[in-house]
Amino acid sequence: MSLLNNLVLKAAKGEKTERVPVWLMRQAGRVLPEYRATRAKAKNFIEFVKNPELACEVTIQPVDILGVDAAIIFSDILVIPEAMGLPYQMIEAKGPWFEKTIKTKSDIDALKIAEGEDLNYVLKALQLTKKELNNRVPLIGFCGAPWTILAYMVEGSGSKTFSKAKQFLYTEPILAHQLLEKITQSSINYLKSQVKAGADMIQLFDSWAGILSEKQFYEFSLHYINKIVQEIKPLVPVTVFAKDAHYALNKIADTGCNTIGIDWTINPTKARNEAGKNVTLQGNADPCLLYAPEKTILEETHKMLNEFGAERYICNLGHGLYPDLDKEKVKYFVEVVKSFKFN
Amino acid sequence: MSLLNNLVLKAAKGEKTERVPVWLMRQAGRVLPEYRATRAKAKNFIEFVKNPELACEVTIQPVDILGVDAAIIFSDILVIPEAMGLPYQMIEAKGPWFEKTIKTKSDIDALKIAEGEDLNYVLKALQLTKKELNNRVPLIGFCGAPWTILAYMVEGSGSKTFSKAKQFLYTEPILAHQLLEKITQSSINYLKSQVKAGADMIQLFDSWAGILSEKQFYEFSLHYINKIVQEIKPLVPVTVFAKDAHYALNKIADTGCNTIGIDWTINPTKARNEAGKNVTLQGNADPCLLYAPEKTILEETHKMLNEFGAERYICNLGHGLYPDLDKEKVKYFVEVVKSFKFN
Repeated sequence: MSLLNNLVLKAAKGEKTERVPVWLMRQAGRVLPEYRATRAKAKNFIEFVKNPELACEVTIQPVDILGVDAAIIFSDILVIPEAMGLPYQMIEAKGPWFEKTIKTKSDIDALKIAEGEDLNYVLKALQLTKKELNNRVPLIGFCGAPWTILAYMVEGSGSKTFSKAKQFLYTEPILAHQLLEKITQSSINYLKSQVKAGADMIQLFDSWAGILSEKQFYEFSLHYINKIVQEIKPLVPVTVFAKDAHYALNKIADTGCNTIGIDWTINPTKARNEAGKNVTLQGNADPCLLYAPEKTILEETHKMLNEFGAERYICNLGHGLYPDLDKEKVKYFVEVVKSFKFN
Repeated sequence: MSLLNNLVLKAAKGEKTERVPVWLMRQAGRVLPEYRATRAKAKNFIEFVKNPELACEVTIQPVDILGVDAAIIFSDILVIPEAMGLPYQMIEAKGPWFEKTIKTKSDIDALKIAEGEDLNYVLKALQLTKKELNNRVPLIGFCGAPWTILAYMVEGSGSKTFSKAKQFLYTEPILAHQLLEKITQSSINYLKSQVKAGADMIQLFDSWAGILSEKQFYEFSLHYINKIVQEIKPLVPVTVFAKDAHYALNKIADTGCNTIGIDWTINPTKARNEAGKNVTLQGNADPCLLYAPEKTILEETHKMLNEFGAERYICNLGHGLYPDLDKEKVKYFVEVVKSFKFN
C-alpha cells in the first residue's frame, strides 16, 4: 500500500519533491472548531487522549480541513511517565500536574520500563487512524525527548524555569542518568510499537531543551536522543525538534536523524550551514505570523521558502499553533506553501 | 569622588582589572532573608518600589552581605508604562497585570512621554543609595528595552508566548513603531535623569527579545535599543541584555554599547567571536548552578571564567537569581569569582 501523498516522507529521506510539503505542529487540535466539538465528547483531557476513536477523529481533521501533507497522531508526551508508573492530571488552564514526583533513587527504582502494550490506547488510535487515512498522507508518531520527560517527572508541572528539574541535574547527576536511561528504554519500546501500529515517521519533541546550558544539553539530552534515533531510524525516518537548542544543529545532525525541526529564532541560511546538507530541515514560521493580514502571510512565507530552498525541506511552524488563531488564516498559510513555486 | 571599587566600570570601558568583577542579576532581592524583612515593611510591591528608603536598603544589602562589586537600584521595568499613563498592579504569585492595555491609535495618543520627574521616587532612591554606598562600588541604573515594555503594555500581563503583543507587531506595525518611539523617548528621559541622580552605569533589559524572530528583533527592538545607547553612552557605560537573542551579538555590538549581557545557553568563546573584541561580555552562569554542591560550583565557575578570559569581562549569571537559592551558595559563588586567578 503506497501513500498517495508521500511528499513529507520523500523530503525526510532527502528525495526531490515536486513541491514543498507542509504540516503544522499542534495541527491536531486547538485551532479547529471541529476539534473542540470532538473534545467535548470526552469527560476530560486524559479520557480524550485515551479514547482511540476520538484521537483518530482529531488526527484526521487537519488533513481534511487544512489540507496538510501529513497527519500527526493526537496524544500527549506525558503518556510515558504514566506508563512508567507516574500518572498525571491535566488541569484546565494550568497544564499538567503530577501528584507524585521523582526525588530519590527508590522513586526511580519503583518506575517500570514501559512496554508498547502499556500504551495500547495510543497504538489502537494509530491503527485506526492509519486505516481511516486510507494512505492519503503519512502518519507521524511521536514522543517527548527523555530530558523533557524527566523535567516534568521531577518538577511535577510546567514551569518557566524548571528549576527543580535543573537542580536535580546539578545535585543528583547519577540519579538523573538512571532516570533518563529508563525513560529512553521506555521511549524506544513505545516508538517501536508505534511504528508497528502504523506510524510512517517519528518526531521527538525536546520542548525544554532551551533551558539547559549547552554542556548539559549534550550530556543530559542529546546523548539519549541519539540512542533513540539509532534504534528508530532503521525503521522509519526520525525528526528531532529541540526547541531553543540553537547552538546544537550540527551535533543534532551528527545523530543521523533524518530531519531537524527549528524554531523561528533560527535563520534558515545559518541553519543550513550549521546542520549540513545531509539532513532535512523542518520549520520555522512564527505561529504569530498567522495573525497577520493575508498579504503579510504571503510575503513572509515566500521569503522563508526561498531562504530554505527546494531541497531537504519540510515546511512547518517554529512552534505549535496557538488556540486563538483563525482557522482560515491557517488554511491560507497551507495553501500559500502548496502553491509556491521556486523562481 | 572616585569609587573605591571601580572594577565593573573599568571592565565595561575595556580597561584591565586586577581580578574579575562580579555582580548578580536580581541580587537586590529574592534570595536574601534581609530583603524579605525589608519587603515586609511595605503594604505591597508597588508601594515598596515607590519607597526610596526601602529601595535604597535592599539595593545596598547584596553589597554588604554578598560582597558583589556593584549595586543595582531596586526598582521595576514597569515604572515606565505607569509614568506614561498606564498603571500596573503586581499580583502575588502571578506577576504584573494592567487593567487597561494598548490596542488603538487613540490609546497610544493618550500616553504621555515620561519625564524624569515623573519617576521622582526612583531618582530619590538613586540619590539616597549613592550617598549611602559612600563610593564603595558603582551604582547601576536600568530600564526595560522598548520592545519588552510594549509587550507588557499590549499583552497586559506576563505570558509564555506574548501572542497578543506579537499579533500587534504583525497587524499594526505602524502603531507599534509609534508606541515604541514614545517608550524610547520616555526611557531616554528617564535614564538621563537616573545618571544625574547618581547612576554610574546603565543596563537595558530586553527580557522578551527571545520571542521575536530575528527580523522582528532588528526592526522592533534593536532599532530602539540603539537610539537609547546613542543618547546614554556619552554619559555613562551602557549594557544591553537581550535575553535569548542568541543570533544578534554582532548587531548588538554594532550599537556601540559597552557591554553585552549573555544568557547561559550561549557559549563564551562563540560569544566573543561573534561580538568582537571592542565590547565587554557579561554573564553567563546558569542560576541553577547555585543549587549544586560547592565542588561543582567551583569547577563550573572556573571553567566559565577561563573560557571568557581576563579581558573585557564582567562575571554575572545568565539570568536572575531564583528566590529559593541558598544565600550561602550565592555568597560562595561570588567568593569563587573574586578569588579566581587566571593560569
